[in-house]
Amino acid sequence: MRCCGRSGATMGSISQKGGPGNSLAWRLCLSIPGGKRDEDLILPINSSLSVTLHQDQLKTTTTVAISKDFAEDRIWLNGREEDVGQPRLQACLREIRRLARKRRNTQDGDSLPFSLSHKVHVASVNNFPTAAGLASSAAGYACLAYTLAQVYGVESDLSEVARRGSGSACRSLYGGFVEWQMGEQADGKDSVARQVAPELHWPELRVLILVVSAEKKLTSSTVGMQTSVETSPLLRFRATSVVPARMAEMMRCIEERDFQGFAQLTMKDSNQFHATCLDTFPPISYLNDTSRRIIQLVHCFNTHHGRTKVAYTFDAGPNAVIFTLDDTVAEFVAAVRHSFPPEANGDKFLKGLQVRPAPLSDELKAVLAVEPTPGSVRYIIATQVGPGPQILDDPNVHLLGPDGLPKPDA
Amino acid sequence: MRCCGRSGATMGSISQKGGPGNSLAWRLCLSIPGGKRDEDLILPINSSLSVTLHQDQLKTTTTVAISKDFAEDRIWLNGREEDVGQPRLQACLREIRRLARKRRNTQDGDSLPFSLSHKVHVASVNNFPTAAGLASSAAGYACLAYTLAQVYGVESDLSEVARRGSGSACRSLYGGFVEWQMGEQADGKDSVARQVAPELHWPELRVLILVVSAEKKLTSSTVGMQTSVETSPLLRFRATSVVPARMAEMMRCIEERDFQGFAQLTMKDSNQFHATCLDTFPPISYLNDTSRRIIQLVHCFNTHHGRTKVAYTFDAGPNAVIFTLDDTVAEFVAAVRHSFPPEANGDKFLKGLQVRPAPLSDELKAVLAVEPTPGSVRYIIATQVGPGPQILDDPNVHLLGPDGLPKPDA
Repeated sequence: MRCCGRSGATMGSISQKGGPGNSLAWRLCLSIPGGKRDEDLILPINSSLSVTLHQDQLKTTTTVAISKDFAEDRIWLNGREEDVGQPRLQACLREIRRLARKRRNTQDGDSLPFSLSHKVHVASVNNFPTAAGLASSAAGYACLAYTLAQVYGVESDLSEVARRGSGSACRSLYGGFVEWQMGEQADGKDSVARQVAPELHWPELRVLILVVSAEKKLTSSTVGMQTSVETSPLLRFRATSVVPARMAEMMRCIEERDFQGFAQLTMKDSNQFHATCLDTFPPISYLNDTSRRIIQLVHCFNTHHGRTKVAYTFDAGPNAVIFTLDDTVAEFVAAVRHSFPPEANGDKFLKGLQVRPAPLSDELKAVLAVEPTPGSVRYIIATQVGPGPQILDDPNVHLLGPDGLPKPDA
Repeated sequence: MRCCGRSGATMGSISQKGGPGNSLAWRLCLSIPGGKRDEDLILPINSSLSVTLHQDQLKTTTTVAISKDFAEDRIWLNGREEDVGQPRLQACLREIRRLARKRRNTQDGDSLPFSLSHKVHVASVNNFPTAAGLASSAAGYACLAYTLAQVYGVESDLSEVARRGSGSACRSLYGGFVEWQMGEQADGKDSVARQVAPELHWPELRVLILVVSAEKKLTSSTVGMQTSVETSPLLRFRATSVVPARMAEMMRCIEERDFQGFAQLTMKDSNQFHATCLDTFPPISYLNDTSRRIIQLVHCFNTHHGRTKVAYTFDAGPNAVIFTLDDTVAEFVAAVRHSFPPEANGDKFLKGLQVRPAPLSDELKAVLAVEPTPGSVRYIIATQVGPGPQILDDPNVHLLGPDGLPKPDA
């Protein structure tokens, strides 16, 4: 885990780390974005589970540089400078510096070649649309926490650093199947992520992200989030009386690679999460008509086959995340293409993993009750379970130049 | 309550009653369509409350005739003959005949001019679209039960007869504000409707029905209904732990004509009902994108005014039912017209009660975040709280002719 991507030799004072190409964590079920018992510490009201998706398809890359020559902390996201003063970013920086200071005070032979009062520059890019509701903030903050830790030489659990940025980011610190344990302590010290099963545990599992036509969000996710905890009686009941048993059951399904159980629980829990959003006042609606058509498509597909071959889950947006096994991907993609014909760029409709074209039987076409709505699914990203953060040693792929500013093409 | 609309004099054997122009009951809140503890007796898992809407705008008219000359029971809905063998209709007929037999056996001087073995003809029409999800079956079965009772001379509580047809129909037997008490007995004898407040209790209250563009229902309401009780953990919690307190609070709001309380509880409970639909497996979605835009419009409107002036509720379909007070109707209709401009037939956009045109302030226009979507609200029906069943004495308005068959224009 040691990193040698230090590239600031020519300037002496820049300590730069190669950005780990961090994976996007996808909530598979049981997570409540914003269902927080403590809004400041970002502590959840129940444990949750996610799958980290593969960086070949979806990744965040982050570079951090530290220098005595930097006048202030600065951050660039996807090449555009953003306000470094936003509270969550500040909380991450404060937390990592606190951990670095603690380490300096408790360990001999601190080897950091810079003062903790030096300013940092951060550059981060996603290889997927940031605004598309693809949990970019989870991947982004996990990657930020991990890269900062590399630079600052912090080796302790990073859950808290990542969590301060975006709750679900703590899960993205690991590959494979990851649990975010809600913890019990008021200070959140035991609200940490841990890997439940590694990346290669279930090699047949496939993930399809159906990116739904972007329409203006009816409810801003940040505005409504905390109100769920305050106003939804169903959310409180769910957290205390439904989720614990479902978490245990989901762990079992993953361990035994029981796809039927895994799939049904995933769908039920996605539906219940969105039910509690609707029970919030004012209500929050992340699903739109296309989301609901996808839900119907999945149930029709499964009914046709007489068993649960495909599952959906929805995060805080209308995009569907589909779980299936490798032997079903081609037929399901054909079903999606049938129900949501690409409007244009048909060749770009499917991204990511190769999927062979498959014919759709007339019987299946007949039961897909959904009337075709061209263009309402913009494209599909085919991917699978992936590893945790990776360190990029090659300075050529770092996002900040020797001057600590974003490279022209970054 | 006695009726003299007997029109079968020329044929001697036909006993015909004028159809009470029965009102449409609208669930205001707290009702769970299909949330039934007993599917056969149609017993609900919680009590519920509804407002009966005015017959000037929304009504069902039913005529029943009985004759020894009829070879079989027959029924015509909106001029078209339907299958009289459907189980719920048969249950109604069986129940009313049972009550009539009981009355004949226990009372002296039974005056029915026909045998209970004679067959019935029934004709029923709605003056509103049947398929539009406007609770036509509640109004229809209430009207049928009431009319049958007139013909058969049954004077006992008709809740059970109506309930056997459509659960919520028992509430439509009364005008004003009506409670359906869930009851406790296994045989459902105490699952009856009662009037909470009469028709003229809250004269300022207005009801707007926003009929949303018909799209094919994604989920058939009958298919999914019983599965809610079986599969939704949230529904069970709601019925036992949320609804009882809300019922009490709603009664208070109605009694005190507390619009703010009434409105907020109505919205919260509509949202929670639809949340439990989504928590059903497979999930049920009655709301569509237009429904959600209406929800957002209402919240924007209230936020702009700094208080709750308008409330929405949704039944088992995408149409919105809006509650407001008479001083707010004109401005809210203008807001709806702004957000959902009529595509055509602009003069038919508003039906029912007269609403004067009102200008929309620029400030309000600015906060109506909803992007105008022309045509997605088809039309508005403006109405108010109405009376219970009415008897139509005039034979000219009866739907069956002296021959017991529908009149040509019925």
